[in-house]
Amino acid sequence: MTVYYEDIEIGTEELYGSFTFTEEHIIRFATAYDPQAFHLDHEAAKASHFGALCASGWHTASIWMKLYVQHHQKQQLAAQQRGEATAELGPGLGFKNLKWIKPVYVGDRLSYGSKITAKRISEHRPRWGVVSCDNWAVNQDGVTVFEFSATVMRERRP
Amino acid sequence: MTVYYEDIEIGTEELYGSFTFTEEHIIRFATAYDPQAFHLDHEAAKASHFGALCASGWHTASIWMKLYVQHHQKQQLAAQQRGEATAELGPGLGFKNLKWIKPVYVGDRLSYGSKITAKRISEHRPRWGVVSCDNWAVNQDGVTVFEFSATVMRERRP
Repeated sequence: MTVYYEDIEIGTEELYGSFTFTEEHIIRFATAYDPQAFHLDHEAAKASHFGALCASGWHTASIWMKLYVQHHQKQQLAAQQRGEATAELGPGLGFKNLKWIKPVYVGDRLSYGSKITAKRISEHRPRWGVVSCDNWAVNQDGVTVFEFSATVMRERRP
Repeated sequence: MTVYYEDIEIGTEELYGSFTFTEEHIIRFATAYDPQAFHLDHEAAKASHFGALCASGWHTASIWMKLYVQHHQKQQLAAQQRGEATAELGPGLGFKNLKWIKPVYVGDRLSYGSKITAKRISEHRPRWGVVSCDNWAVNQDGVTVFEFSATVMRERRP
């Protein structure tokens, strides 16, 4: 799929892939960006309201971004290999109602995906469409741990 | 300041500090979490809608978290040195209306801060208060580049 704005259908769900949060990953992200004890140290985490070492919420969110980008890069590569034009991923404009619903503990494997909820052509930048989607991560037990709604730009077919 | 829930006053503004987005930092974050060409490569960025290498929006957000945590850790340390009890930073519950207003380019220096907009005692967890705040980053030209509203838990005075 080349995924220009015109290819996007409201209601479509896409799965972006899965990621296992290892101790090493959790501590590396937290050291750089969220140095709270319950993201860095097992003993301190055990004594905290979380009860065990868990990932920074911004880590959970950043992995969403990583898998989203990689998913679209794979689609672009496949289109290129078929000799088709490829749509640019436009800039994200922001998001609404981000919720960290459950902690993400060491060893948790999250699967990420999204559902298209609305689309319209940009008034100010007619080269682009504006696409709204609901995004989520579920853990290995099928429990939703993270969700937010995003609005992103998507290139229109030339 | 010990910053228990009871110490927090609506309308208070806090500055968390500044961070300069170097090329090295931008590329390191993007490589791990947002591998789009305009966050990784000068030439590709020049040809993109951004016009120059710029930081992942999730990077801008993660640095907010880092400075927020460090700010409160300094307050806790100061309280401990005065022999006072220290309040725990509670878990973040989520965010609303995050906006990446302007790109953050190599060399941009962002200053981060927030303003308390509301507070209430948690219905379900009476040990905790629920605090709402508006958060932002402004660049070296005084332009707001990033903002969001957060709801966080804050420990009540024992």
